[in-house]
Amino acid sequence: MRQSQLTCRTRRQAPAQIQAPGQSLLVRAGMLEQIQGGLWAYMPLLARSLQKLYGLIKRRLSQSGFEEVAIPLLRPVIWDEAIEEVQGILLKDQRLAIGGDCTGALGTVAGHTIQSHRDLPRYLFCLSKSFSDKPRPGLGLLDPREFDVIEAFTFDPSSDASERSYQGILEACSDVFTGIGLKHEVFDSDPGPAAKCSQSLVATNQYGDHLWLRCDRCGYKADAQWACSRLDQYPQDQQQLPMESVLGEGLISTEAIARFLGIPLWKTTKTMLFEADGRPVAVMVRGDCEVSLAKTRKALGCKRLQLLPAAQVRQLTGCDIGYLGPVGLPQEVLLIADHYVSGRVNFECGANRTNYHLINVNLGRDLPMPRLEDIRLAKPGDGCPRCDGRLEGQVGLEFVRLCRSVPIGEFSYVDATGNRQGIFIGRCTLNMTRVIGILAEQFHDQAGLCWPACIAPFLVHLIGLNLEDPQTCQSCQQVYQRLLGDNIDVLYDDRMLPAGQKFADSDLIGLPVRLTASKRSLAAGGLEYKPRSDKQSQIVDIDMAMALIKDLAARY
Amino acid sequence: MRQSQLTCRTRRQAPAQIQAPGQSLLVRAGMLEQIQGGLWAYMPLLARSLQKLYGLIKRRLSQSGFEEVAIPLLRPVIWDEAIEEVQGILLKDQRLAIGGDCTGALGTVAGHTIQSHRDLPRYLFCLSKSFSDKPRPGLGLLDPREFDVIEAFTFDPSSDASERSYQGILEACSDVFTGIGLKHEVFDSDPGPAAKCSQSLVATNQYGDHLWLRCDRCGYKADAQWACSRLDQYPQDQQQLPMESVLGEGLISTEAIARFLGIPLWKTTKTMLFEADGRPVAVMVRGDCEVSLAKTRKALGCKRLQLLPAAQVRQLTGCDIGYLGPVGLPQEVLLIADHYVSGRVNFECGANRTNYHLINVNLGRDLPMPRLEDIRLAKPGDGCPRCDGRLEGQVGLEFVRLCRSVPIGEFSYVDATGNRQGIFIGRCTLNMTRVIGILAEQFHDQAGLCWPACIAPFLVHLIGLNLEDPQTCQSCQQVYQRLLGDNIDVLYDDRMLPAGQKFADSDLIGLPVRLTASKRSLAAGGLEYKPRSDKQSQIVDIDMAMALIKDLAARY
Repeated sequence: MRQSQLTCRTRRQAPAQIQAPGQSLLVRAGMLEQIQGGLWAYMPLLARSLQKLYGLIKRRLSQSGFEEVAIPLLRPVIWDEAIEEVQGILLKDQRLAIGGDCTGALGTVAGHTIQSHRDLPRYLFCLSKSFSDKPRPGLGLLDPREFDVIEAFTFDPSSDASERSYQGILEACSDVFTGIGLKHEVFDSDPGPAAKCSQSLVATNQYGDHLWLRCDRCGYKADAQWACSRLDQYPQDQQQLPMESVLGEGLISTEAIARFLGIPLWKTTKTMLFEADGRPVAVMVRGDCEVSLAKTRKALGCKRLQLLPAAQVRQLTGCDIGYLGPVGLPQEVLLIADHYVSGRVNFECGANRTNYHLINVNLGRDLPMPRLEDIRLAKPGDGCPRCDGRLEGQVGLEFVRLCRSVPIGEFSYVDATGNRQGIFIGRCTLNMTRVIGILAEQFHDQAGLCWPACIAPFLVHLIGLNLEDPQTCQSCQQVYQRLLGDNIDVLYDDRMLPAGQKFADSDLIGLPVRLTASKRSLAAGGLEYKPRSDKQSQIVDIDMAMALIKDLAARY
Repeated sequence: MRQSQLTCRTRRQAPAQIQAPGQSLLVRAGMLEQIQGGLWAYMPLLARSLQKLYGLIKRRLSQSGFEEVAIPLLRPVIWDEAIEEVQGILLKDQRLAIGGDCTGALGTVAGHTIQSHRDLPRYLFCLSKSFSDKPRPGLGLLDPREFDVIEAFTFDPSSDASERSYQGILEACSDVFTGIGLKHEVFDSDPGPAAKCSQSLVATNQYGDHLWLRCDRCGYKADAQWACSRLDQYPQDQQQLPMESVLGEGLISTEAIARFLGIPLWKTTKTMLFEADGRPVAVMVRGDCEVSLAKTRKALGCKRLQLLPAAQVRQLTGCDIGYLGPVGLPQEVLLIADHYVSGRVNFECGANRTNYHLINVNLGRDLPMPRLEDIRLAKPGDGCPRCDGRLEGQVGLEFVRLCRSVPIGEFSYVDATGNRQGIFIGRCTLNMTRVIGILAEQFHDQAGLCWPACIAPFLVHLIGLNLEDPQTCQSCQQVYQRLLGDNIDVLYDDRMLPAGQKFADSDLIGLPVRLTASKRSLAAGGLEYKPRSDKQSQIVDIDMAMALIKDLAARY
């Protein structure tokens, strides 16, 4: 394509509000234009990259036996009880959500077409959209208001088959992103109420919205909300002391209580009241820890878990939030505690009386042993749950989410013996918009973007210089025609602009190969060949240039 | 692809609620599955056709210099005053509409990139969606809740250039749809308040939602809401009689009044009160005619035009709707009349007094001559506005809408002399979903669909019979491999099913060529070759079959 006909306005400076350097370069390179806060238009160059990315992923999914279907964005809402938590944009009166969960829609379709064990497995995917209520306009495609996604589904007759399909799609994702060169890692993540297990592909990035934990010794990796960890154990008192009530006015944080009482923080206790699918639940963790909502939800097996508001806490216990404790809770409140709450002798906790605390509390003596679960939020510095190592924290952006679930009531098939069996469903959501955003963050230098060859808008940037000279202009034209004739994906800068400006634009746009044809290069025997990532260029003749380019093209 | 791995369940019968025969066949062929009323999933075969259709149109648009961009579905609402009439699904609190008009979004982008006359013309297109409040679930893809569309925009520096671009895109559309073989016609249509002229590509169909008028003598064609026409003139009284008020209780329709008074219908008058951008307007047409809202809006140059409710009519005139007339209207009411209202001597009209009518009314004598405009709805049987012919009515489905407009304030560029000039915008909306639906209506017979080769899901349906016989099975396999090896787009029916069922499925799905390999055909020297549209098949050897298929493929 001729650059004079390309809709692309490069800029020396990006708008000040753009924080992430790669996104800033996308805007400077004229590839991304802001419509309004968090809403972005892919300009022609970037639209080409997006198309290539779709192509790579679709091809790889086809190889794994996936078939493409097209599903409307308007989707039936499937979970009555959780209508406020529906994904996408809810049209409440019509019981539809735009860009909502497509499991219901695809499940209906699968229900029509999957009848017997002979119809299984089935792998389907569709292009879709998802929407965000909290875009971060300074982060461009990393956190926009609207994402383009691919949703892939596997339908299997058994748990084993579903696990194999899950591994297959994980491998497909890994192949594609490793092929592009996108640096990423796989973390275990919160499967949510409906699924059995879940993993995320995550790219490390300082603008990440999420903390991930890893053990570099054994390779354990998980979402911080979902991770397990070991805590240090402390020497305990030899003797249980009598429980006492202590006035500690206005002392709400465990740090303040520990200071006031002169005890270590781990001897204090946090107690919180939740509503879990309508039932009140008191949740205890050690005072130096936090509660993981994801793990608590899983431990309780509930779909919805939310903190009780202060008024309801007062109604149930008679005290303000901050003085809650496990001793003397009303009978209807279920009490669960993190494993590390137990094993302590003479610990502190709230007294269920405003401004009062209990000290020298002992489980089994002052209250019955509560149900113990792993509901504690793991944090950097904790011990790895699998080895002797320590967990490290890493901020990153999730761009693929996989999960698989046990069969849900309505989806079933007839097995070889004539019995009805549940279908095991696996699911993979690929966030295409964020992938493009992450690539821009990972592939750039000071001067501009450096696209990987397989998804660069064009493979070659042919720069014609001295075009005011008819002979040079004609030679450039011939080179361009020769590249086109050999089906090379080429952008030809045929604009009448100074060389410096053309080179600056070329670096900004960042196509893999820059090929310069100027009066001087032609006199020296050919063209200046310079890969985007190299500092040096070399003069080569046209045949050599073609050979180098074809070699590059063949590798992708 | 092997049919045993294809997600496609054919049916003997379509659900009873599906009215349109082509849509019924899409469901029977397992290509279309209903999610719920008006929401449809494209199954893998149909998703392939949709992709091919996109490919054809995108290629043709590229040839015409269009560049693809990607625009979010969430779009800023641009017209404050008409927020209730916003296209798409409105998120009122956020001033965004999903699938709304993308002119605002693309205009912003164009504003960022088009600075000077050197940046013009620009042609951009994007894939988009539009939503319908009134789906007709019995009409499948002809009238669903959600449509896939392509929106193409042209940005030009002058009216002439814009007209040329408009013709270019009309030609591109015509090329694509004529190439596919989709029967259609081009009608003039209502450009709406913002545009200057508009045309529609329409396919005749009994389930059409719209009436179109045509003159077969001169080729005049227009949307019935927008068409012009000639009416018969009647001999008039020689002498003006004195105007009289007549009691005609409860006589609201002009038919009833004409009967009561014993006068021809054309001597009666319809008067209606509208609000046009906030201003009251009385609109008069002859009693045997109707008002065209589109033409009235254009004549008034207003954006919004709506009938005044009865209460407001009473407040303004003191009478009920049905007794409105042009004589003695309050001064603030603008009066406009259709041309055919004038030229009558001694006509009837409402008296602006409930139950009363005026007779022997004469323009210029009993009231000042009103502004005369062409605001009458043309109808089948009317005279053609361009020749002596008569207009015929035709029900049809619009699937492409083109329009072009005069510059809108905000979109401008700097011309060669340094002055700021408005940009002329043209626009074309291609309704992809409806195109697929119309193709199914136009390309089928009793046994099933008959896809045009260029958008058939596959070009060849290879049917393997007697597959229980290892040798036949192996031969079929070889034929399949040979077709694949030659890059022929082939669906191989490798299922262990009776021949009758396979042929019935094959006819239903309707791929252009059926190639049958059976014990018998192989013994007779090869394969049974049968184009979907032919009754007869012929036995050909494999080389001949390949030659025939390649010949067919080359034609598209």
